[in-house]
Amino acid sequence: MNVAFIGTGGMGLPMARNLRRAGHAVTAWNRTRAKADPLAADGVVIADTVSAAVRDAEVAVTMLADDHAAEEALTAGILEALPRGAIHAGMSTVSVAFSKRAAKEHAARGQGYVAAPVFGRPEAAAAQKLWVVAAGPAETVERCRPLFEALGRGISVVGTDPSAANVVKLAGNSMIMAAIEAMGESFALAKASGVDPRQLLEVVNSALFQSPLYANYGAIIAEKRFEPPGFRLRLGLKDAQLVSAAADAVHVPMPLASLVRDRLLRAVAEGHGDIDWSAFSSL
Amino acid sequence: MNVAFIGTGGMGLPMARNLRRAGHAVTAWNRTRAKADPLAADGVVIADTVSAAVRDAEVAVTMLADDHAAEEALTAGILEALPRGAIHAGMSTVSVAFSKRAAKEHAARGQGYVAAPVFGRPEAAAAQKLWVVAAGPAETVERCRPLFEALGRGISVVGTDPSAANVVKLAGNSMIMAAIEAMGESFALAKASGVDPRQLLEVVNSALFQSPLYANYGAIIAEKRFEPPGFRLRLGLKDAQLVSAAADAVHVPMPLASLVRDRLLRAVAEGHGDIDWSAFSSL
Amino acid sequence: MNVAFIGTGGMGLPMARNLRRAGHAVTAWNRTRAKADPLAADGVVIADTVSAAVRDAEVAVTMLADDHAAEEALTAGILEALPRGAIHAGMSTVSVAFSKRAAKEHAARGQGYVAAPVFGRPEAAAAQKLWVVAAGPAETVERCRPLFEALGRGISVVGTDPSAANVVKLAGNSMIMAAIEAMGESFALAKASGVDPRQLLEVVNSALFQSPLYANYGAIIAEKRFEPPGFRLRLGLKDAQLVSAAADAVHVPMPLASLVRDRLLRAVAEGHGDIDWSAFSSL
Amino acid sequence: MNVAFIGTGGMGLPMARNLRRAGHAVTAWNRTRAKADPLAADGVVIADTVSAAVRDAEVAVTMLADDHAAEEALTAGILEALPRGAIHAGMSTVSVAFSKRAAKEHAARGQGYVAAPVFGRPEAAAAQKLWVVAAGPAETVERCRPLFEALGRGISVVGTDPSAANVVKLAGNSMIMAAIEAMGESFALAKASGVDPRQLLEVVNSALFQSPLYANYGAIIAEKRFEPPGFRLRLGLKDAQLVSAAADAVHVPMPLASLVRDRLLRAVAEGHGDIDWSAFSSL
Repeated sequence: MNVAFIGTGGMGLPMARNLRRAGHAVTAWNRTRAKADPLAADGVVIADTVSAAVRDAEVAVTMLADDHAAEEALTAGILEALPRGAIHAGMSTVSVAFSKRAAKEHAARGQGYVAAPVFGRPEAAAAQKLWVVAAGPAETVERCRPLFEALGRGISVVGTDPSAANVVKLAGNSMIMAAIEAMGESFALAKASGVDPRQLLEVVNSALFQSPLYANYGAIIAEKRFEPPGFRLRLGLKDAQLVSAAADAVHVPMPLASLVRDRLLRAVAEGHGDIDWSAFSSL
Repeated sequence: MNVAFIGTGGMGLPMARNLRRAGHAVTAWNRTRAKADPLAADGVVIADTVSAAVRDAEVAVTMLADDHAAEEALTAGILEALPRGAIHAGMSTVSVAFSKRAAKEHAARGQGYVAAPVFGRPEAAAAQKLWVVAAGPAETVERCRPLFEALGRGISVVGTDPSAANVVKLAGNSMIMAAIEAMGESFALAKASGVDPRQLLEVVNSALFQSPLYANYGAIIAEKRFEPPGFRLRLGLKDAQLVSAAADAVHVPMPLASLVRDRLLRAVAEGHGDIDWSAFSSL
Repeated sequence: MNVAFIGTGGMGLPMARNLRRAGHAVTAWNRTRAKADPLAADGVVIADTVSAAVRDAEVAVTMLADDHAAEEALTAGILEALPRGAIHAGMSTVSVAFSKRAAKEHAARGQGYVAAPVFGRPEAAAAQKLWVVAAGPAETVERCRPLFEALGRGISVVGTDPSAANVVKLAGNSMIMAAIEAMGESFALAKASGVDPRQLLEVVNSALFQSPLYANYGAIIAEKRFEPPGFRLRLGLKDAQLVSAAADAVHVPMPLASLVRDRLLRAVAEGHGDIDWSAFSSL
Repeated sequence: MNVAFIGTGGMGLPMARNLRRAGHAVTAWNRTRAKADPLAADGVVIADTVSAAVRDAEVAVTMLADDHAAEEALTAGILEALPRGAIHAGMSTVSVAFSKRAAKEHAARGQGYVAAPVFGRPEAAAAQKLWVVAAGPAETVERCRPLFEALGRGISVVGTDPSAANVVKLAGNSMIMAAIEAMGESFALAKASGVDPRQLLEVVNSALFQSPLYANYGAIIAEKRFEPPGFRLRLGLKDAQLVSAAADAVHVPMPLASLVRDRLLRAVAEGHGDIDWSAFSSL
């Protein structure tokens, strides 16, 4: 398939490479072009503009940092240059509102839109271990499926309205943040009470949650190993703010999500925006 | 081994039965004697008083509802009647402070004390699937090990000071409550946004946490199936209050645990004390 | 002075009337024209469009429900029709971001901009008892001063950047909401403990705060007299969301403001959007 | 009147002196006797034991640091040595539970019990500006009235069950803590937004609350003038814990009080227990 890949940062670069390795023709664009250049060695074409990248695409994948970057790519290239009948697969973690707007704009131009955010960190992206949460018109999603399969270990299709995928992604992140906060508090209680947090973590792993996510974050939190960051705290704050906005829009109180957002805000305000996001629970 | 079993309620009854079935000589006591009677058919001796139950015990197990009941059993029988050299294995979910006091009192009388609270609901108790978190002097814990093995699928020994086991139990419950609150909020967000909570739950199970605990509570919360209760909400409140007391004692702020405690308080105040505790996140 | 008054709702109508009574020539506009009509009897001219209303104004006052309405009035009339050298006095409770944008747009057209939100309910507006919090270039604020004096019992000038006034207004509302929540919780504690909330209120008034604001809200909360609304709960939610946005923008954690926002969200979700906002603390 | 004064710390010393100056015969006791000695110059008799101090008293006033100290004075002297028919006026800030217990014990011995905690800091105590919140059987309260009048600027009698006074005191403190937190957050928002907190404070004073309490704490918080302490943060934490216990006992959720308690806990854990309690909102 002819694929445009917009945004080759920490997540996007290995994803673009995996699409190329799966046999697709990939044209990539990145705002800082140097970050895309390594892909040339894999046979990826590097484009100078978003428009040039998407001009011949069957599917244009976006993997950008935030709503602002996604909005810019949309209005400064994708909408105008993506062929009629082609699909925009938005894989960034963006707002529910953005997906609603993008779906409308694309529909007006005869283009398809699928929201397909992923769970997984850069290592998972490199190892083709992402999990893709996709939503959009069934036929549109199906056309993207081979791409999603090349990127991850699984796909969940959660609805025909693209924004459903963003809701699920944000709800999921919200649960991860809650688990992080809960471990931060519990490990602090253990430690102050004279119990080694690693012993508590062992119980968490073997008896309580038996979950790789708890095992991974638990180890980071128990050892306060927040550098280098797997996912930067300031991006975690962005996600928490997207959760807040999504909750506001449908009038759902989420006090735990609010608590976490305030902890992240505090951490950023105190200068910890560039360490691992799980640190917010322990500062 | 000669075992006294004090407290044969929803959890205690199947535990006492499993000890008997593992070949131990069990004498049981329960405040409401009728609740202990079914054990007679298994060959368990039913005692009229705590003192009578523990008089010849090598190990006296307590499995009582709260600090108050545990205190009563301790002062109205166990301390005075348990033989020197015998061990009190406190398996109830009680306060850190209680364990500290019990350890001291038993030591003064030449008796051993092990705190050994469990993770698991009554079904798990019946199926020998509990997880025992034990703490106490190593030799004392070892003498209890055959009993713990007859009760569960695993044992974590978390320290030589008995109260360490209570800390771990409370910290663990605190994390479970956080997971429940997080699911309640996230499922509400999904639903209000037009996404079926069961689809979100599928992502939770396959992509995010891959944890039996999330799967079990997630199903209850997604379907708002809070009756009959697996664990009553008013007991959940009690646990949340024990977490609070433990955190206060060592000056550890636990804002998420506080939030959960207030949600439980509200639920009890509104008359929901006898439905499943996981309901607090959805009321 | 030639004054345009945009937005003659519950607050705006008595304000426009007071300006007229102070001797100013007032042209008013309201989206639902019928709501402006009663002002004709006072000698106020009713305009059909925003542009028509502001065309000859020396000062155009806006008093609108929210950012959306304020944005609309700005772009659909005020910016294009307000004379060069004239001033826009934004008295609505709007976002900090809106004021920053409005100031820039007006400056680009040689128009002045002052933000001047007010504290006070409709009764206070009618009784010329509002308190005006103004910010903007000193000379611009001074030209508006006679108008502000006709509206209220006092004026605080809090800076030369107009958005400073919005910050103060939102910070103030945030403190009021905190006081409301605190009274709701404390009165509930009193009542459940067998103490008449009115006795607690008397102590609040005579010993603790000695504040008319506590006295007023305290009486409403002690008697749960939430209808008719003095200020609708759904507007309180809007303000809480503006506080949240302002805090986010400068990375200031405001956990108490977040708590209140979640309480308001819950109240709106449960259908209480049209009773008095102070009810959120008691639902 | 013959008065025993138990506890002559920062608050108790000026209170005992004022009682003496009002013409009462005062016998004082303090755990650290040296702290009571200055009263000798005023004609106060210093006793060596609690029992000796209360033996001939018509009213024994207690003004102690916490439940623990109050309990000790009660059981190690007051109950046994206070004459039948005499009254114990408990003016310390203690738990609701303590007052219930004290009332019962005194009644069993034919002694009267009034709870009469005060609002006011040491300066107010010295200046006879305290506010006394009293509760107990009407006739008993009346007999104490001359003493209360010698101590303060006003008295509120809030019920016939002594513990009602403790409820009111704790509810009041809870509202003060909320106001402190609200100011801390709002001033931080102002400052980060480029607005001088003192300008916001001026609006608080003149337009919003018009309350001496806001004015006083507002000045401290706006200038971050937390040393020397007017009231130590660790005592504020104690009060927050008493609020929590009172709320728990009657199943009233107080999420704002919980938030404040966690902030105080954090402040103490970080070593700020001995600066002014209002600092918790700004750390």
